[in-house]
Amino acid sequence: MRSLIDIVEFSVEELDELLKVACDIIDNPQKYSEKCKGKKLATLFFEPSTRTRLSFEAAMLELGGSVIGFSDAANSSASKGESMADTAKVISCYADIIATRHPLEGAPLVAAVNASIPVINAGDGGHCHPTQTLADLLTIYREKGRLCDLTVGFCGDLKYGRTVHSLISALSRYTGIKIVLISPDELKLPDYIREDVMEKNGMEYIETRYLEEVMPQLDILYMTRVQRERFDDLDTYERLKDSYILTLDKLDTAKKDMAILHPLPRVNEISVKIDDDPRACYFKQVRNGKIMRMALILKLLSETDKHWDPFEDTVKNKYICSNSKCITTVEQELEHIFKKNDDGIYRCIYCDSQANKEEI
Amino acid sequence: MRSLIDIVEFSVEELDELLKVACDIIDNPQKYSEKCKGKKLATLFFEPSTRTRLSFEAAMLELGGSVIGFSDAANSSASKGESMADTAKVISCYADIIATRHPLEGAPLVAAVNASIPVINAGDGGHCHPTQTLADLLTIYREKGRLCDLTVGFCGDLKYGRTVHSLISALSRYTGIKIVLISPDELKLPDYIREDVMEKNGMEYIETRYLEEVMPQLDILYMTRVQRERFDDLDTYERLKDSYILTLDKLDTAKKDMAILHPLPRVNEISVKIDDDPRACYFKQVRNGKIMRMALILKLLSETDKHWDPFEDTVKNKYICSNSKCITTVEQELEHIFKKNDDGIYRCIYCDSQANKEEI
Amino acid sequence: MRSLIDIVEFSVEELDELLKVACDIIDNPQKYSEKCKGKKLATLFFEPSTRTRLSFEAAMLELGGSVIGFSDAANSSASKGESMADTAKVISCYADIIATRHPLEGAPLVAAVNASIPVINAGDGGHCHPTQTLADLLTIYREKGRLCDLTVGFCGDLKYGRTVHSLISALSRYTGIKIVLISPDELKLPDYIREDVMEKNGMEYIETRYLEEVMPQLDILYMTRVQRERFDDLDTYERLKDSYILTLDKLDTAKKDMAILHPLPRVNEISVKIDDDPRACYFKQVRNGKIMRMALILKLLSETDKHWDPFEDTVKNKYICSNSKCITTVEQELEHIFKKNDDGIYRCIYCDSQANKEEI
Repeated sequence: MRSLIDIVEFSVEELDELLKVACDIIDNPQKYSEKCKGKKLATLFFEPSTRTRLSFEAAMLELGGSVIGFSDAANSSASKGESMADTAKVISCYADIIATRHPLEGAPLVAAVNASIPVINAGDGGHCHPTQTLADLLTIYREKGRLCDLTVGFCGDLKYGRTVHSLISALSRYTGIKIVLISPDELKLPDYIREDVMEKNGMEYIETRYLEEVMPQLDILYMTRVQRERFDDLDTYERLKDSYILTLDKLDTAKKDMAILHPLPRVNEISVKIDDDPRACYFKQVRNGKIMRMALILKLLSETDKHWDPFEDTVKNKYICSNSKCITTVEQELEHIFKKNDDGIYRCIYCDSQANKEEI
Repeated sequence: MRSLIDIVEFSVEELDELLKVACDIIDNPQKYSEKCKGKKLATLFFEPSTRTRLSFEAAMLELGGSVIGFSDAANSSASKGESMADTAKVISCYADIIATRHPLEGAPLVAAVNASIPVINAGDGGHCHPTQTLADLLTIYREKGRLCDLTVGFCGDLKYGRTVHSLISALSRYTGIKIVLISPDELKLPDYIREDVMEKNGMEYIETRYLEEVMPQLDILYMTRVQRERFDDLDTYERLKDSYILTLDKLDTAKKDMAILHPLPRVNEISVKIDDDPRACYFKQVRNGKIMRMALILKLLSETDKHWDPFEDTVKNKYICSNSKCITTVEQELEHIFKKNDDGIYRCIYCDSQANKEEI
Repeated sequence: MRSLIDIVEFSVEELDELLKVACDIIDNPQKYSEKCKGKKLATLFFEPSTRTRLSFEAAMLELGGSVIGFSDAANSSASKGESMADTAKVISCYADIIATRHPLEGAPLVAAVNASIPVINAGDGGHCHPTQTLADLLTIYREKGRLCDLTVGFCGDLKYGRTVHSLISALSRYTGIKIVLISPDELKLPDYIREDVMEKNGMEYIETRYLEEVMPQLDILYMTRVQRERFDDLDTYERLKDSYILTLDKLDTAKKDMAILHPLPRVNEISVKIDDDPRACYFKQVRNGKIMRMALILKLLSETDKHWDPFEDTVKNKYICSNSKCITTVEQELEHIFKKNDDGIYRCIYCDSQANKEEI
């Protein structure tokens, strides 16, 4: 049974196929309007996320299917102490496919290995959010006509922004991508993304603190929010914050066909005055997210007999996960399972965090 | 794009057309059971209201459409600081029509001018609740066969009851309506409704504190709740409250075909013993509300190319809205926009409150 | 109009018919996929219960119907003080059948007598949960091929477990049932079940504190959770708890075709290592619950003209209910109604508790 936890599980060929199906859905929506007739999507949202949940629900409805689910943990059996594994087994009796969001990292993988239906990770803490990346990829593809030979700027919080990490990983497999990292020192891209993803794949990149400096060369500008709570020092925040707010005047030097992306919700990091500029693509991105989720649901429902084993080449119960937000910290009778990466580091199969150094 | 924020936006001809469609739906439900096939209603309820939300959802389902949405703000993106404008733009990518309830007055208009799909106001604070008025009108029409030449009593809290204000406004455009206002002095109809609506339109009306006194002349009795928290003085409340509770014995002098309406929920202001009296129409009103919402959804989905501009003849950013519950107090980058009424008073385009006197 | 509040309202013949329909649904799901087209189920959950709610929703969707509702009281009109009776009358305007869960015992009966559509009790406090019993019966029937001539063990909390009481009541009408009661003294089956149900119906039974002692003779083992909060004395709890946790080694002496049931959610009372044992039937039970709910919805929607009067042979307003969790304690203008049992005891029609001794 195939599930989707992390975008890197899909090959470039698979991504290309998803993009192709998505474009066909856009061109011929009627062709798909009964594809999932009689099928049910379960949206298991252990923390609220209206946009993502409604996107999945709209996707399933536009495929002619229906939806059951819950929108926060208080309304779920988890409030009665049920494990994620049991929830997945129970929901497998009710639905044909699951989309789940969870504050604990790795929870969707626990669901996937226990469910007898496909599971889509709709966001697990700071870990992964692969369907956002699918939305980003379709938007770039539709705006620029390609996923190669592009200069892509990422602006704002590059340290905690999982959508940034994930999109860089996805783009690392295409050729001719130049990455421009624009952030304050406090919020720079983590070393493991720079080294393990960009340098390892030979991606060209530059780092800067100043958006204006690099604006003219960008094909894509991916904005994120700089949150006050990320700074130890409020003075620094106050001094920096305006640099990472996109206003109409800053667009003067940008290419006329640059595409501005943002994973939303925005608060004030993009002025609403930009919304009517043809370069503003963040609401198109929303629609594209729905379309890619349609393509993804179709793909996973058609691959239920495909082999997928996240436990290949792993070691069990030798180490403990170091991440306090990992599902292994709370899930009943869950084994600690690690995979040895190329660099020799053992990483938790659930949340990708490093193992604690000592063996159990 | 046409939306519905305030009942007065609909002409008498439009209301008559809605009533006609509603009666046809009642007679031929099957004819309408696939009218919205493939269409989606988004119910965006930023505060809970089961009855209204489920009425909209039942309406859309009986038209063959489907529903997405949320039932309180905690489960919405607003909890992450998203503006109403952005929410409306995002939901426009997922659904075909929006019904929204919001504690802040004017929020549905902000949604309507930003959405690319029609928006129905399902209640915004104390401001408007037009689909309740549609339910009231259909109930009167079906019970009495007409919307003119009627004596209509309103009993209870006439000061804060927005359904009362709204129904009086709607009835002011029909001929031969006599209004009977029954309330304690503390909860009398506000002057601006009496003057701007009733007197301006030459409506006949009387005011009284005693329900029994006027009961025999009423064709319609519209009950509302007298809430303890509206009184500064608890003694006054205790002395008055029973006068505004409808019991079986008080009905002795009423016409045999009087119709009793109530917007619900009731607590104790109508004795449950009256429920089986043929004059009790408040549960018929519930069913009529669903039917009128069906007619309204059909109307708005058929008028998406119709021009609607709430900003005609307005002034921008010259005054500030005086209403602390207006959406302008919180919505990001929202301009303050006012319209000059016949009386020379500038009123906020969003919540209809007066402008603060000084110009900005 | 027929509703389902307590499993004992169904005759053995009716249960057999439900089981027969359920088996046909399992064999021919397509035959049922449009049976409820155009029909709406309202799920009125005044307290959260994901599993039960989603089971009902999946059931209705698999019958081709649709669903409206709410998943906790905060999102319902009850938070505005609406009575259960009014809610039932209102929802009757929106839906074709109701499934309701409520923390107050008797609330679903209040809904049933006020609604103009069938009402299914989806759990009312510690009182009844008949659709769980339907799930249990189908599971036993499908695993063992019969509902008679079985030795059925109940293990754990037999005092407060309403699913235990309810299943014993249901089984009391079949022949050749032997009941094995396994619990600590603190959590023994209440006398009124032992006397009024088991002894009155001549059921064979034994009581023990030790699961291991009786394991070899069981055809069915029904597990429940032993909750810490049920014990006055924590030492006792600590000493006892492991005796009532089912582990793989305890299964060594069990029959090879014993069926293990559990109403779920479990916390730790059944080791997850047992999940893969062919005797583990608790997830099959989940699927069976959905199937029986499908059969039940079909039955009730086909019997809307059938006479059902829970008020036959009752006395009104002569006694007061002694149960502080009874709906009569809060519902507006609700009469206190009692039925005299064979033993001469007056029991509340809503919650089955005894009347307070003095007459009003």
